[in-house]
Amino acid sequence: MIKQYHITLREYPKGIHLITTVILNNLEQLPEKGLLNIFLQHTSAGLSINENADPSVRVDMELFLNKTVPENSPYFTHIFEGSDDMPAHIKSSIFGNSITIPIVDFKLGLGIWQGIYLGEFRNHGGKRKLIITIYT
Amino acid sequence: MIKQYHITLREYPKGIHLITTVILNNLEQLPEKGLLNIFLQHTSAGLSINENADPSVRVDMELFLNKTVPENSPYFTHIFEGSDDMPAHIKSSIFGNSITIPIVDFKLGLGIWQGIYLGEFRNHGGKRKLIITIYT
Amino acid sequence: MIKQYHITLREYPKGIHLITTVILNNLEQLPEKGLLNIFLQHTSAGLSINENADPSVRVDMELFLNKTVPENSPYFTHIFEGSDDMPAHIKSSIFGNSITIPIVDFKLGLGIWQGIYLGEFRNHGGKRKLIITIYT
Repeated sequence: MIKQYHITLREYPKGIHLITTVILNNLEQLPEKGLLNIFLQHTSAGLSINENADPSVRVDMELFLNKTVPENSPYFTHIFEGSDDMPAHIKSSIFGNSITIPIVDFKLGLGIWQGIYLGEFRNHGGKRKLIITIYT
Repeated sequence: MIKQYHITLREYPKGIHLITTVILNNLEQLPEKGLLNIFLQHTSAGLSINENADPSVRVDMELFLNKTVPENSPYFTHIFEGSDDMPAHIKSSIFGNSITIPIVDFKLGLGIWQGIYLGEFRNHGGKRKLIITIYT
Repeated sequence: MIKQYHITLREYPKGIHLITTVILNNLEQLPEKGLLNIFLQHTSAGLSINENADPSVRVDMELFLNKTVPENSPYFTHIFEGSDDMPAHIKSSIFGNSITIPIVDFKLGLGIWQGIYLGEFRNHGGKRKLIITIYT
């Protein structure tokens, strides 16, 4: 059995955002057992799973990405959409755009400290679209 | 219902290559709804999803990886297979070797700007093998 | 058909470890065809697939991660759990915490050189928990 949901997120500012609750609020009751895949239909944002409690983790994670993938790198040639564009594509491939989470006992099988991150890597990325696929 | 396909890609030069069409050309009609997993059976190449229109994104992405994972790093000890070998393993883990894409309305649920990337990280990587698994 | 297993790994030291055999030893006979998802319930360790033969690949991979995500980076603010903590979160998002592998002919469809890596990114990470979900 497959169920799919299409979710459009509100626009988020550049940065890393916890979206576990937003996603769950858009789904019906989860099945007892299965897998849930979240697929982000964009190339300048990303999905990851990481620490859900202390916002400083999200701040430091973004600072790390900004320093590791600097804007205006002299060798970039894909520059006509703004200095945040090519770094956003690279960060998107570092994070990835799809995550798969087991469903256990009618809930996401996340560890106690795990939450779902949206990495918004553009200054004005707009509303981002997700496809959720649930297998039972 | 599960269907699996084994695809052998032609040899690609070192770089990042758009392989969406190559993959689709090797599959039968997709089901109405499901998930498609692409698994690359190699440790010195990778798969990612990113921008499908402007080749400069692929060029800059590879330049970024080359600069971030430099050949001949003085601390590398795994050097007997050539200076491109250890960086290729690292880039493979950064990209990942497996992607999962929803199937929606008989098509891949990719966003309008999304394509499937093969990162060929070796100078002479040879023909790469993929396993495609489709769940419906 | 879905089957799930919960595996608790022994404590590993900081570093990158091959855990293919440990995982397989905890599973019953695999089905003829399917997908296997491994999900790590932690935010300071990661999973990847890479070279299974030469231990120097794992050593160099960890050295690369340590150099690329240095402890005590002056801009880190999430520092109260020790200097290895914030780098561990970042490395976890670089590796990812979930991998999906096809099952082919009653075996994992890994390439001949592929093995499953646990990246233990903390000095004392403790026992790590995995959820294995098998789809047939």
